[in-house]
Amino acid sequence: MSSHPLESIFHPRGTALVGVPSDPNGPGGSGGFLTSIMEQGYHERFGLYPVNPKATEIAGLKCYPTLLDIDAPVDHVISLVPARVVPTLVEQAIQKGVRSIHFFTAGFSETGDAEMAQVERTMVKRLTDAGIRVIGPNCMGLYVPGVGLAFMGGFPKEPGNVMLISQSGANAGDVVHNLGRRGARFSKVISFGNGSDLRAHHFLDYAISDEQTEVVTAYIEGVQDGRKFFEAVKRLAAVKPTILLKGGLTGAGARAAHSHTGSLAGSTQVFDAMCRQTGAFRAETMEDLHDLTIAVTTGLKRVKGRDVALVGGGGGFAVLSSDSLAREGLDLPPAPQELKDALHEFMPIAGTSANNPFDTNMSTPELSERALRIVARGPFDVVIATPSFDRPQRGPDDEPLDTEAKRKHALEAAEKAAEQFGRLQAETGVPFIALMRDRGASPEVADRFAQEAYRRGVAVYPTIHRAARAVAGLLEWRERRAGLPEIV
Amino acid sequence: MSSHPLESIFHPRGTALVGVPSDPNGPGGSGGFLTSIMEQGYHERFGLYPVNPKATEIAGLKCYPTLLDIDAPVDHVISLVPARVVPTLVEQAIQKGVRSIHFFTAGFSETGDAEMAQVERTMVKRLTDAGIRVIGPNCMGLYVPGVGLAFMGGFPKEPGNVMLISQSGANAGDVVHNLGRRGARFSKVISFGNGSDLRAHHFLDYAISDEQTEVVTAYIEGVQDGRKFFEAVKRLAAVKPTILLKGGLTGAGARAAHSHTGSLAGSTQVFDAMCRQTGAFRAETMEDLHDLTIAVTTGLKRVKGRDVALVGGGGGFAVLSSDSLAREGLDLPPAPQELKDALHEFMPIAGTSANNPFDTNMSTPELSERALRIVARGPFDVVIATPSFDRPQRGPDDEPLDTEAKRKHALEAAEKAAEQFGRLQAETGVPFIALMRDRGASPEVADRFAQEAYRRGVAVYPTIHRAARAVAGLLEWRERRAGLPEIV
Repeated sequence: MSSHPLESIFHPRGTALVGVPSDPNGPGGSGGFLTSIMEQGYHERFGLYPVNPKATEIAGLKCYPTLLDIDAPVDHVISLVPARVVPTLVEQAIQKGVRSIHFFTAGFSETGDAEMAQVERTMVKRLTDAGIRVIGPNCMGLYVPGVGLAFMGGFPKEPGNVMLISQSGANAGDVVHNLGRRGARFSKVISFGNGSDLRAHHFLDYAISDEQTEVVTAYIEGVQDGRKFFEAVKRLAAVKPTILLKGGLTGAGARAAHSHTGSLAGSTQVFDAMCRQTGAFRAETMEDLHDLTIAVTTGLKRVKGRDVALVGGGGGFAVLSSDSLAREGLDLPPAPQELKDALHEFMPIAGTSANNPFDTNMSTPELSERALRIVARGPFDVVIATPSFDRPQRGPDDEPLDTEAKRKHALEAAEKAAEQFGRLQAETGVPFIALMRDRGASPEVADRFAQEAYRRGVAVYPTIHRAARAVAGLLEWRERRAGLPEIV
Repeated sequence: MSSHPLESIFHPRGTALVGVPSDPNGPGGSGGFLTSIMEQGYHERFGLYPVNPKATEIAGLKCYPTLLDIDAPVDHVISLVPARVVPTLVEQAIQKGVRSIHFFTAGFSETGDAEMAQVERTMVKRLTDAGIRVIGPNCMGLYVPGVGLAFMGGFPKEPGNVMLISQSGANAGDVVHNLGRRGARFSKVISFGNGSDLRAHHFLDYAISDEQTEVVTAYIEGVQDGRKFFEAVKRLAAVKPTILLKGGLTGAGARAAHSHTGSLAGSTQVFDAMCRQTGAFRAETMEDLHDLTIAVTTGLKRVKGRDVALVGGGGGFAVLSSDSLAREGLDLPPAPQELKDALHEFMPIAGTSANNPFDTNMSTPELSERALRIVARGPFDVVIATPSFDRPQRGPDDEPLDTEAKRKHALEAAEKAAEQFGRLQAETGVPFIALMRDRGASPEVADRFAQEAYRRGVAVYPTIHRAARAVAGLLEWRERRAGLPEIV
C-alpha cells in the first residue's frame, strides 16, 4: 500500500453519517448515502454510525444523537446537515478526532454569497488546522468499492483499476453506472465539489503512487491552482493514461459552471494546450471520456496505426461505417488477394463481399471464427467486427423454446461470442473491437456481452462512430506523447 | 386509398415464398421471411404459400412443390431461390399472373459480373413486359404492417405514418427496430437493393399520394436516375418532411457502396446542394436519420427558434449540456427575474440554480410539474428536461417492495412522467424534449417512457448532443425552406 498522506482517507475504519434522515428511503435523497454504503457491505466490516437526534435506530443500525455519542473511533464523517449546523459539527469532529470529513452540505461559496464563502473558508481552516482533511462542500464524496463506501445505489462492489475524479457528483454517478455496465471497475471515485481543501491536484498526485489505479479520468469545471494542476497532470500523465474532460468551455457552459461550482471559465485553447503539453487525453464530451477509458483499459490500447478491417454487419452498414471511419481519418485498405481467396473458400458470393469492409457470412459462431481468424492475418492495425450470437429457437428435442429458455440461450451465446473475441485477440495479437449495436438483442444480452468481452480485454462500442473516435483519439494521444515513456 | 399505380403492390392478397427452407428456423436466415410474416398475422387474413418441392408442410402451412401448384390467386412472390433457378421462377410467375415479385435472391449486377448483370436486365425486362413489378434483386423487400408483410422478426404490428425507403435491408431493419423502440410506427418500409425496376424515385413519388404516409425517410447509396430522383424529392419534400441519408460520401464509403449495390459515388457537395434545393433534410449519420424522424413526428416539429431552457439533471450535467447546445448554435438565455422568483418560492438554495440551465429539485412528480410549468412560461422556444420517476422502495403498508413490485412501480412511474410531459406540452404550447439518459433506469423502463412520451407527441432523445442536433437540424431545414409552403 502506498504511504501517500491521502491514503488514510480511503480506508476509514469507522464512518458516521451526521444528519441522515430517519427514513433513509424518504424524499430528498440524502438517505441514499446510508443505503448505498450498506449495499456495499461497509457495515459488515467497519463501524457505520447514523447520527440523528430524532431516531434510535435507522435501517437496522443503532442511531446516535450526536457524533460525540458514538462509543467507538470514527475516521470519516459524512455531513448531511444544513449549512447552519455545520459550525457545531466542525467542533464535534475535532473533538472526536476524525481524519476526514465530507460535506454533502451545500450553500457555501458556490452560491456566490460573500458571507457563505467566508463561512466556508473559516470552517475549512479550523478543520485543516486540526489535521482533518475536507472533501467538498457541495459534493457526493467517496466511492471506494474495496472498502465499501459509496454515494449512490447500484455501484459495482468489486474494485478495479480506474480512478475517477469529478467536480460533479451526478457526472461521477453517470460515469460509474455507464462504464460499470460496460464492465469497467473503479479503484477510487471522488466527487470533490467546491474543493475547499482537497482538490483535483491532490487526487491526481495521489493517483501516481496508488498501486490499485492504472488509469485516471477526471471531470473538471474550474481549476483552482492552475500551476499545481498543470504540474500534477504532467507528472501523472507521464506514468499513467490520464483522460481529462473540461466542462464550461463555451460561453453558455462557463455561465453554468460558475453557478454550479463557482468556477471561472477556461478556454478551449488553453485546455487543449495543457493536454498536449502534458501528454493527457482530452475528451471533448462525456461519451469521449467513457470511450477513451474503455480504450486504454483493453487490448485496444495497443493499436498502432490507422488501417482498419471491418467485418460483418451487412452491406449498408459497411457503407455508412466506411464513411464514419474515413471522417475520423482512418483507412480501410483493400484485402490482399490471398486473404480474399481464403475467405472465398467458404463464402457464398451472394450478398457478401470478400474485400474490406468484409460483408462475410457471420451467421454462426463457426463461420464468424473462421472469417475473423483469416481477416486478422491481414495487414490491419485493428479488426472491428459485429459479433454474431447463435440463438436457437428450438431445444435439443426440437421443441420450441419458451421465453426463459431463449433468454438463457441468448445469454450463453453472448458469453460464447465474448470468449471468441477475447481468444482471437489473444491468439492473433491484433486488437479487436466488438460493435454491440442496438439490433434486437435484449439490453440484458447486450450488457452481458459487453461485460464479458471487457473482462477478456476486448473493447466494445455501441456505434462505429464512437469506435472510430476512440481509435483516432488513441492514435492522436500516442503521436503527441512522442518523447514521453510508452505507458500502454 | 390512393389510386397510385404502385398501390397494389402494398396490398397483396396472396403471397408465395418460393424457395423457403423446410426448416424456417434453420441456419441461413431466409426462413426468417416466413416466420416474420406469420408473426404479423398475414396468413390469418390472406393466403400465405410456402413453396419447396422437398416439403409438404412448413410451420403449419401447406407447402407447394412449385408456384404453379398453388390452387389460389397469388399477387406477390418472394424469391428465396438461388440465382440459377430464377429464370424458371420468372416464367412461372408470368404464367401464374402475379403482380409483383421481390428478389431476396442476390448474385446479379451487384457482383460486378457482366454476365450476371445481363441476366438481371433480361429477367427484369421479361417480367415488366408482362406487367409484373420487380423489387430488388439483392434486398429484403417489404414491411407493410397494415397488411402483415415483414422481413424481420420483432417488427411492430401496428401501422404508422413514417415511410422508409432503403437501399440496404439491414439498415432498414435497424431503423425499424430502433425507431420502433422509441415509439415510431411505419406506413410502408421498402428495401429495394439493386433497384432493377422499382427504385427510389418510384417510391418517393408514391409517398406523395399515400395518405398513410406523413413523413418519408430514405437511405440511398447510389442514384440511378439522377434527374428523376431529384424531381421526385423536390415534389415530395414540398409537401411532406423528407429525410435523406446518403451512404458512400467518402472515398472508403464509396468503395464499399460499389461492392454492396454496385452504386457509383456521389459527392457530399452534390448531395448537400440537392437537399438544399429541394427542401429535404440531410441526415449525416444513421443517428441523425433516427433523430430527425422523431423530431418531425412529434410536437418538436413546431420549434421556431434557438432559445433553449434546460431543466434538471444535476449541475455537472447542466455544464456539459450547455457546452453541447452552444456547439450546435443554440442559446440558453438567462431567466427573467419573475421566473426566478417563482422558482425560488419552492426551491431550496442548496445545490440548485434558478437560472437557465435550471438545476431545480425535480425529485418528485409534483416538484417536476411545478418547475416545468413555471419554466415553460419563460421566453424559450423549447424546454429540454430530464424526467424524474417516482420510485418508491416501500409499498403502502411500509413493507419493502420485491423485485417484481419495484419493476411494476417503475413502469407506472415512467408512464406517469410521460403523461406529465405530454400534458405540459399540450397545455403550454411550448415544444418539450425529454432526455432519457442511461442513468440506472432499466432499459425496459426507459423504453416504456420513450414509447409513452412519443405516443403523446413528446420527442425523447438519449443524449443532449443528439437533442441539440435535432433542434439545430429542424431550424436549419426551416430556414432553407423559406419560400416553400410550411408543412409542419
